[in-house]
Amino acid sequence: MTKENRPRARVARGFRDISADEIRGTRQMLAKIQEVYESYGFEPVEQPFVEYTDALGKFLPDQDRPNAGVFSFQDDDDQWLSLRYDLTAPLARYVAENSQKLPTPYRSYRQGWVFRNEKPGPGRFRQFMQFDADTVGSASPVADAEVCMMAADTLEALGLKRGQYVINVNNRKVIDGVMQSIGLGQNESLARKLTVMRALDKFDRLGELGVSQLLGEGRKDESGDFTPGAGLSKDQIDPLIQLLRFGSAFDALQRGEHLSSSLSFPNPFVHPPATWDMNAYGHAEELERIRVSIAGVNPHNKRYSRSFGFDVLSSIPALFKMNDTLASGVHELAEMQDLFDKAGYGPERILINPSIIRGLEYYTGPVFECELLMETKDEDGRTVRFGSVGGGGRYDDLVARFTGQPVPATGFSIGVSRLYSALKLAGLAQESSTLAPVVVLVMDKERTGDYWRMVQELRKGGIRAEMYAGTAGMKAQMKYADRRGAPLVVIQGGDERLKREVQIKDLRLGAELAGNIASRAEYASQRLAQFSVPEADLVSAVKKALAE
Amino acid sequence: MTKENRPRARVARGFRDISADEIRGTRQMLAKIQEVYESYGFEPVEQPFVEYTDALGKFLPDQDRPNAGVFSFQDDDDQWLSLRYDLTAPLARYVAENSQKLPTPYRSYRQGWVFRNEKPGPGRFRQFMQFDADTVGSASPVADAEVCMMAADTLEALGLKRGQYVINVNNRKVIDGVMQSIGLGQNESLARKLTVMRALDKFDRLGELGVSQLLGEGRKDESGDFTPGAGLSKDQIDPLIQLLRFGSAFDALQRGEHLSSSLSFPNPFVHPPATWDMNAYGHAEELERIRVSIAGVNPHNKRYSRSFGFDVLSSIPALFKMNDTLASGVHELAEMQDLFDKAGYGPERILINPSIIRGLEYYTGPVFECELLMETKDEDGRTVRFGSVGGGGRYDDLVARFTGQPVPATGFSIGVSRLYSALKLAGLAQESSTLAPVVVLVMDKERTGDYWRMVQELRKGGIRAEMYAGTAGMKAQMKYADRRGAPLVVIQGGDERLKREVQIKDLRLGAELAGNIASRAEYASQRLAQFSVPEADLVSAVKKALAE
Repeated sequence: MTKENRPRARVARGFRDISADEIRGTRQMLAKIQEVYESYGFEPVEQPFVEYTDALGKFLPDQDRPNAGVFSFQDDDDQWLSLRYDLTAPLARYVAENSQKLPTPYRSYRQGWVFRNEKPGPGRFRQFMQFDADTVGSASPVADAEVCMMAADTLEALGLKRGQYVINVNNRKVIDGVMQSIGLGQNESLARKLTVMRALDKFDRLGELGVSQLLGEGRKDESGDFTPGAGLSKDQIDPLIQLLRFGSAFDALQRGEHLSSSLSFPNPFVHPPATWDMNAYGHAEELERIRVSIAGVNPHNKRYSRSFGFDVLSSIPALFKMNDTLASGVHELAEMQDLFDKAGYGPERILINPSIIRGLEYYTGPVFECELLMETKDEDGRTVRFGSVGGGGRYDDLVARFTGQPVPATGFSIGVSRLYSALKLAGLAQESSTLAPVVVLVMDKERTGDYWRMVQELRKGGIRAEMYAGTAGMKAQMKYADRRGAPLVVIQGGDERLKREVQIKDLRLGAELAGNIASRAEYASQRLAQFSVPEADLVSAVKKALAE
Repeated sequence: MTKENRPRARVARGFRDISADEIRGTRQMLAKIQEVYESYGFEPVEQPFVEYTDALGKFLPDQDRPNAGVFSFQDDDDQWLSLRYDLTAPLARYVAENSQKLPTPYRSYRQGWVFRNEKPGPGRFRQFMQFDADTVGSASPVADAEVCMMAADTLEALGLKRGQYVINVNNRKVIDGVMQSIGLGQNESLARKLTVMRALDKFDRLGELGVSQLLGEGRKDESGDFTPGAGLSKDQIDPLIQLLRFGSAFDALQRGEHLSSSLSFPNPFVHPPATWDMNAYGHAEELERIRVSIAGVNPHNKRYSRSFGFDVLSSIPALFKMNDTLASGVHELAEMQDLFDKAGYGPERILINPSIIRGLEYYTGPVFECELLMETKDEDGRTVRFGSVGGGGRYDDLVARFTGQPVPATGFSIGVSRLYSALKLAGLAQESSTLAPVVVLVMDKERTGDYWRMVQELRKGGIRAEMYAGTAGMKAQMKYADRRGAPLVVIQGGDERLKREVQIKDLRLGAELAGNIASRAEYASQRLAQFSVPEADLVSAVKKALAE
């Protein structure tokens, strides 16, 4: 092959290779998640990476165009195939195809890579791993509550402390009911409702003013770009903003107990904005009640923490004209809150939070978002909360797409790479638990068999060990051991052979000494890091040296 | 969505869903393989599922047409992308791209799904998992020998006994050298050489006559289909057949010690075919020597078993006119055999076997095939050996495709699903190690919180447990527990509540009794399988019942 037609070695755009540390760390993390899910009685099941495009349908998260964002290709029988973009759509296909032989409800979990045909960016890849748990066949909010509690237990099993995470819970029916209440009912266009939901979803980032603009006439951002708004009136916007404040205010105050004040989080109670007029909405008493319940959110103060979710829910009728959808959503959330309370999951772990809007078109009831509260830096170097590492909700229509029969379903999905990054940040990723191997050098190619037997003995003694497998000399072999991060090398040249001895060289000690060496005399003392033992003592001597 | 435009729920052609048993069994199997590979000092690394099509190149195993058999799609920047068809081509890309930061030699391992755009058949899927280990950067046969020994150790770590498996080893240079020796040299067309190699590869299945025909004028199979031959003369064919006999004769004799005689394996020494003329090739002494070494292959007879590999190798000069390629191949195999002997891997574990031809165009030196010797039934119900579950070899040219610099490399790949099937057949797959959960029934929807706390207590006690999460009544809940395979259910109705008791119903015992029940009177005794305990004793009583 000539130079001109040689391909260039480069990883494909938006894809990445995964290092040993991340593979090992992720493996341990996944095993712990599995353990919790298994203890809850969830069963593993896996669908293939490729599905018929029509089976995946148009329910692509965060996308409104059918099949946009999906890698697709045509089979030789002309049917269109696609790489899965999540684990939920394939599960819906599986359940529809196998409903006769599955228990009802059917609890299952699965982990796997999914693919998005989207423009890649920093930290944004086209292949990533999800870990999902779903309960199909139960319409009860108990099933929704269960996956939320399981998510909280999982994060604690991974080592996260209370206050480092929160599972936010809202309900799609509350959102829909609220929209209906302000006049955006069934006859309203889906596009306008999506614009409203997307605006609400940005409260965290843009705060009250920005969201109010997006709900109203539109917003010009810092770069001067103009985003058209949903065209709502002030009367429509105000109660929406007030609803959002519930979650965010609670949120900010709670964070304040655990995190530094450097968070640029809009907290109208702690720092009332100039535009804040407590009586503007005519619900002064309501706000006072919220303020009290927020003030009581100290997790050690059971009386107040218990009541927060119900306070949020009971104040909705004060803010909005009730309708069936809204009432149903509030009722479902109240049932979940009741179970959270009885099971001992306070709002410092699972929080009813009306500011949570998940942009997925297919959710039909409760929605969840798992948020990590540890601080990190954003792309611009600002300190921000780590943010979402997963979420989910109820999707009662996904299976019905195939069967025509309504099949209630709810589930929770973890973003595996994001969670791993978070654990690393929190010092909880056990990435370096595997010690690099001891390297036995090959001093005499004719004696490969002898060196091999040393390696075998070390392995039998439970020590990770390898014989140098290349063809280079002593210097290159030492460089190799160094690059491998080997703690020790084992050397047996002709002299040692005659004495039936082996030399053990401690590279960790050598490296440490080298850092402090000022003179040639001192350099000689580096020999301390090298010692001889009888052949027969190889394994015990290596074990002893490794334990030091 | 109307009935007409609803998609049909069906798994894509050639793909499959994976059950809980297989997922758990495979997970445990993969963990054991990892443990062995880690102990050898191999490091995990993973490449993405998608690569640039040109990076994957034309080296598709078992395919001679560029890119045939690959799922490909065009990116929005017009570059062609493909799903990986194996784990070797992506590794070659990775090493070429990152050679500066990797140790030399670089030992690594990875597991992952690969995809073939081929016609699916029974047991033949378009997505399957491989587990690879590779050493890149060493030209030494020590590196080849190492992966063979690691493969043998892996199979034993999985519980296979000696005699249930063998790692067959050959060398591409021996094959090329032999072809050169019979006049099929460098100027010969690749197509004709491939025809010869494919014919040799079928010795196991077609025997001497079939392979002789395929090497000569061609062969008509049972259905009457004619396959054109390579057009070799008898002088060319005879030494090839004789070489093949080495491996197969050894093979058959060795099998005879472990397996039933129902194997329809051609063994010219045990059952000389009518056409067999020991003097026809003019190497009577040579054959006698083979016969002696074969007769001595009892693994307990160290003297003979040690010498077998060398006997094969030393007889090659008697069969073929030597050339540089052939000599180099024999020399490499001898070096490997030397290490196998010194490390204590006899021919009952790793066998130099000249009848092994791996069809992969890209191998340049030693080739390996991991064969399982347990019996199973083929598609026609005949008893056959399980056969290959993996293989590999040296591929010195794959990295050079990118860099222009020769980079020696060798590796071994396990077919994960096939190996899992084999372990299942051998009773070694630990698929049912996870007990189905204890199910707590919901007798009163208002008391969900109480039932939930029971489940929490059970889990805290280390018992896999779930609360019924649906909305159906008692009968459906019992059916659910039954379908889940639950060993026990926990019941607390109003009466038990008042007495602060719970009922525990043993479904295993109930099922057992039901099978032996002849009368109504006996049926009453089924109540033995149900008993009450105080609420406070729930966990200990469940533990005790599970232990029975």
